[in-house]
Amino acid sequence: MSLPAEFHEVAERVNNWGRWGPDDEIGTLNLITDEVVREAATCVRSGLRVPLALPLRQDGVQTGVIPGRVNPLHVMVQINQEVFGPGTVACSDDAVTMGLQAGTHWDALSHVSHSGRLYNGRPAGTVTPHGGAAFGGIDKPRHIVSRGVLLDVARALGRERLDGGHAVTPEDLDAAEEFAGTRVRAGDIVLVRTGQIRSYLAGDRHAYGYPSPGLSVRTPEWFHARDVAAVANDTLTFEIFPPEIEDLWLAVHALDLVEMGMPQGQNWNLEELSTACGEVGRHSFLLSAMPEPFTGGTGTPVAPVAIL
Amino acid sequence: MSLPAEFHEVAERVNNWGRWGPDDEIGTLNLITDEVVREAATCVRSGLRVPLALPLRQDGVQTGVIPGRVNPLHVMVQINQEVFGPGTVACSDDAVTMGLQAGTHWDALSHVSHSGRLYNGRPAGTVTPHGGAAFGGIDKPRHIVSRGVLLDVARALGRERLDGGHAVTPEDLDAAEEFAGTRVRAGDIVLVRTGQIRSYLAGDRHAYGYPSPGLSVRTPEWFHARDVAAVANDTLTFEIFPPEIEDLWLAVHALDLVEMGMPQGQNWNLEELSTACGEVGRHSFLLSAMPEPFTGGTGTPVAPVAIL
Amino acid sequence: MSLPAEFHEVAERVNNWGRWGPDDEIGTLNLITDEVVREAATCVRSGLRVPLALPLRQDGVQTGVIPGRVNPLHVMVQINQEVFGPGTVACSDDAVTMGLQAGTHWDALSHVSHSGRLYNGRPAGTVTPHGGAAFGGIDKPRHIVSRGVLLDVARALGRERLDGGHAVTPEDLDAAEEFAGTRVRAGDIVLVRTGQIRSYLAGDRHAYGYPSPGLSVRTPEWFHARDVAAVANDTLTFEIFPPEIEDLWLAVHALDLVEMGMPQGQNWNLEELSTACGEVGRHSFLLSAMPEPFTGGTGTPVAPVAIL
Amino acid sequence: MSLPAEFHEVAERVNNWGRWGPDDEIGTLNLITDEVVREAATCVRSGLRVPLALPLRQDGVQTGVIPGRVNPLHVMVQINQEVFGPGTVACSDDAVTMGLQAGTHWDALSHVSHSGRLYNGRPAGTVTPHGGAAFGGIDKPRHIVSRGVLLDVARALGRERLDGGHAVTPEDLDAAEEFAGTRVRAGDIVLVRTGQIRSYLAGDRHAYGYPSPGLSVRTPEWFHARDVAAVANDTLTFEIFPPEIEDLWLAVHALDLVEMGMPQGQNWNLEELSTACGEVGRHSFLLSAMPEPFTGGTGTPVAPVAIL
Repeated sequence: MSLPAEFHEVAERVNNWGRWGPDDEIGTLNLITDEVVREAATCVRSGLRVPLALPLRQDGVQTGVIPGRVNPLHVMVQINQEVFGPGTVACSDDAVTMGLQAGTHWDALSHVSHSGRLYNGRPAGTVTPHGGAAFGGIDKPRHIVSRGVLLDVARALGRERLDGGHAVTPEDLDAAEEFAGTRVRAGDIVLVRTGQIRSYLAGDRHAYGYPSPGLSVRTPEWFHARDVAAVANDTLTFEIFPPEIEDLWLAVHALDLVEMGMPQGQNWNLEELSTACGEVGRHSFLLSAMPEPFTGGTGTPVAPVAIL
Repeated sequence: MSLPAEFHEVAERVNNWGRWGPDDEIGTLNLITDEVVREAATCVRSGLRVPLALPLRQDGVQTGVIPGRVNPLHVMVQINQEVFGPGTVACSDDAVTMGLQAGTHWDALSHVSHSGRLYNGRPAGTVTPHGGAAFGGIDKPRHIVSRGVLLDVARALGRERLDGGHAVTPEDLDAAEEFAGTRVRAGDIVLVRTGQIRSYLAGDRHAYGYPSPGLSVRTPEWFHARDVAAVANDTLTFEIFPPEIEDLWLAVHALDLVEMGMPQGQNWNLEELSTACGEVGRHSFLLSAMPEPFTGGTGTPVAPVAIL
Repeated sequence: MSLPAEFHEVAERVNNWGRWGPDDEIGTLNLITDEVVREAATCVRSGLRVPLALPLRQDGVQTGVIPGRVNPLHVMVQINQEVFGPGTVACSDDAVTMGLQAGTHWDALSHVSHSGRLYNGRPAGTVTPHGGAAFGGIDKPRHIVSRGVLLDVARALGRERLDGGHAVTPEDLDAAEEFAGTRVRAGDIVLVRTGQIRSYLAGDRHAYGYPSPGLSVRTPEWFHARDVAAVANDTLTFEIFPPEIEDLWLAVHALDLVEMGMPQGQNWNLEELSTACGEVGRHSFLLSAMPEPFTGGTGTPVAPVAIL
Repeated sequence: MSLPAEFHEVAERVNNWGRWGPDDEIGTLNLITDEVVREAATCVRSGLRVPLALPLRQDGVQTGVIPGRVNPLHVMVQINQEVFGPGTVACSDDAVTMGLQAGTHWDALSHVSHSGRLYNGRPAGTVTPHGGAAFGGIDKPRHIVSRGVLLDVARALGRERLDGGHAVTPEDLDAAEEFAGTRVRAGDIVLVRTGQIRSYLAGDRHAYGYPSPGLSVRTPEWFHARDVAAVANDTLTFEIFPPEIEDLWLAVHALDLVEMGMPQGQNWNLEELSTACGEVGRHSFLLSAMPEPFTGGTGTPVAPVAIL
């Protein structure tokens, strides 16, 4: 079994290998220039800050279906311990075990490979059990801060939540862009809202995961045309799941991460942001979404904040 | 053994219990208003972004002296796994076990208690083994974004790195403020640079931890007078270690976290920021330092970014 | 709410506090004397060894219902790593995160308390977040080796598996003892087979856990009368679940662990042993079920072996 | 760089590939027959039990030198939690993160490869990041119970502890066998005491690990000639470290695990056993050393017990 011809055709059109040199490990994040950030800062008008991460706790979004992607196990290792003797100041400390992709997270470019290759044509074998990702790890982008644009597809289509079978198409993105009243431009980070996370917030993890609306295999070309720096949404799978084309699993992952070199974000809670953008009548903002710098990580938990 | 009278005198002067109501769990972070953030955004002039987190890896700053505060153990749970059959798109996933206070981190207000009390007079017993911190957890501040000011004490005193025995005093902060050319104001997040982290960066974890320069027990009054929102520095212990006053361990922690309700940051790498601020001739910037929202966490890893 | 009078009546009859001195931490394991072990060794006639532990893997018996009791997350930290240079001998290493009570395990005496007391009247507060169990930890019994007796209740009653609602009574134990053809005596470790684990082995973790057959609140007196050293069975909950007496949850745990000071084993796979004992026509054997010596542990994974 | 000719010569002499069929995954453990175990049980004369595992705790033998081989981090996830409401029976639960080879452990046959091969000629690539060891995992030997023989080399040579540079030779084993007063035979598990663990027990982890006495590269032939089932000792490295032959690192591991298919045990505490054997004047016993059945594990913690 191998990837179909139609995949390779799209792949060729969106491919960015070599665009930022043969040694580049951060892909489309190169598009976030100082100027982009300066401009982004001008989006801050109200000073309102909206956090986009789900709580990190054992009752997270993972159901056990993806092996090893464990919800956070948060434990106390000290509680009010009077470290320096009775009557002294007391400390509480904690520890966690969790999958780096378990909650609200960024995929590193090394998260996915196809045909033995990572982004920029590097061998998939550079991801190893000991050191993790030697190439394209989440430690390579030193910062992820840019203008964020909310493309609220659900609202633009007059829905609370897209159906499980809804593939978000380029036409949907156009509609959401018009609804947003701003044009997506080079270096932007696009947040695509489907409303799917409402299932999880309502207590149903299984309904959240499957079936899920998500990005169509046709969207990478849209993002490529706009020179978007990164894309995140409010689903477990990012792309429509199960896929639009039978047996073409994770095609969007392969196109975004491997071909374009564009990081993806998943399980971002965009509900409060949707309300806030609706209220202030603007859908663009300064977005800070710093990766935790795990050396060799193929992903990372992230606590993004939109500053309006 | 109990805390000495001189501790209680200072404690009384900096105490903020009840200031934001009896149920407040975020303390001085209340000082970061929308207006403060709007103003902070105007500090972004060059668009330069400086990350302040140390790499998260097993060879981190912890030496094993603090029980349970383990350096990150980063492991791969899948490597180029063709989840949907041979020839399909392949995924790599990872997981981590780590102390929440192991690397670059924020202390939550619940991290420390004294005399059986947390910030706002709440019982220390609200931190429990199962749920962690029911009060004052790191999940309570929804965002930490404000104006950041670098008080580069080492540079202001013409030093690369302060000596192990150097207690950073209010007078040192005054000197660094003058060096910075800006006045610290309400809602600011102050980053105090001692240069101590250079030991760790040079490969000596033991020298980094002990003895360490750090904040004097006299500094909480300075921060209180300026209504600072939070303080972080580039040491393992935050305060001078061993302490200035014999047997008065962790007094600064108790004054900042318990009495004032002011979060502290530790192990922040301020080296690159020091250089950048020196070059642009400004020591204030927009700072985003979002906590990972661990439910009941008494601390959190953080990947702060200064946007100049 | 407090424990009913009928609980306290039974508790008084089976109580062993002080029996082995005020400082004793191992309870009925004291009944395993050198002589008991010498006798047990004479049970070895065929040399056949039957392992009783379930595989340790992420797809273990835990369903997520018990917070923090996580199935093993087994990860590789090195794979064929040529540690001393290319072409040298290569090593693979692994690590695990797991609940100590997640799989086939022993409960330490400190696992349960009631009315603020552990076994031997010690305060429940001796279990702390930092050191774990200072009293009655799983590190205290230095060895668990004795004669084992299989009481195959399911088979004795002509069943493959007892129903979910079946409370194993003293009369059931009598019947199984007769079926076994040996009399349980002081220092024995009794393995009670219900057949319930067949649900898990057949792939249904949820059916395995609830509802479950298990030991009746009347059985501690039977074990006490016989001076049994420990009891294990093939269920998740050990005792009948939900309980026979409304709202009297975990009464058997409290009677066995707190009052008698008798360790309990859970999730032991007794299927192969049942067959083997049936074939050789003997239900007693040498049993080695050594606890992993976790300092301060309130339980431990165990890999028991019956040697027939 | 590749392994020298002298390695390959020894390898050929001790090689057991194919001896128990092409699909065998347990190697010399096949030598433990029912008859061997029946005989072993007759060694139980006093009923004395001697545990051989080190405590599992954060202050274990690992120093951080071996990446990923982390000492146990034992944490409480519940403490006296009244799960079913106030006043009900209360539970304490714990969890652990640890390297499977961190403390007293068995190496699985899959723990080491050389020249791309595991025991029985299987490809090293059968150890994978997701499932661990598909071949030769620690889950494959269903039980490890046999006659144990203590070869107390230190005592036989009139020493408390062998020097760091002492390679235990076949001649040393002969001397210890004579001292033991029993002849090692097929299926035995041999415990070789160097006394090295006294360094760790005295508080010096670094001295324990390096330099270390240990088995000479000449010993595999001795073990092969006697058809020993397994060998364990009281060192971190098992073999002499640094090696006798320059740059021939881990040669004993490769000969034992890969060529012979003989499991190795490390960090076994043989101090109490040495004393006990001296006192009773016998050095053979029934040994139960059951592996925890981690699916795909390349090693396992073990809590061995010698029953004299």
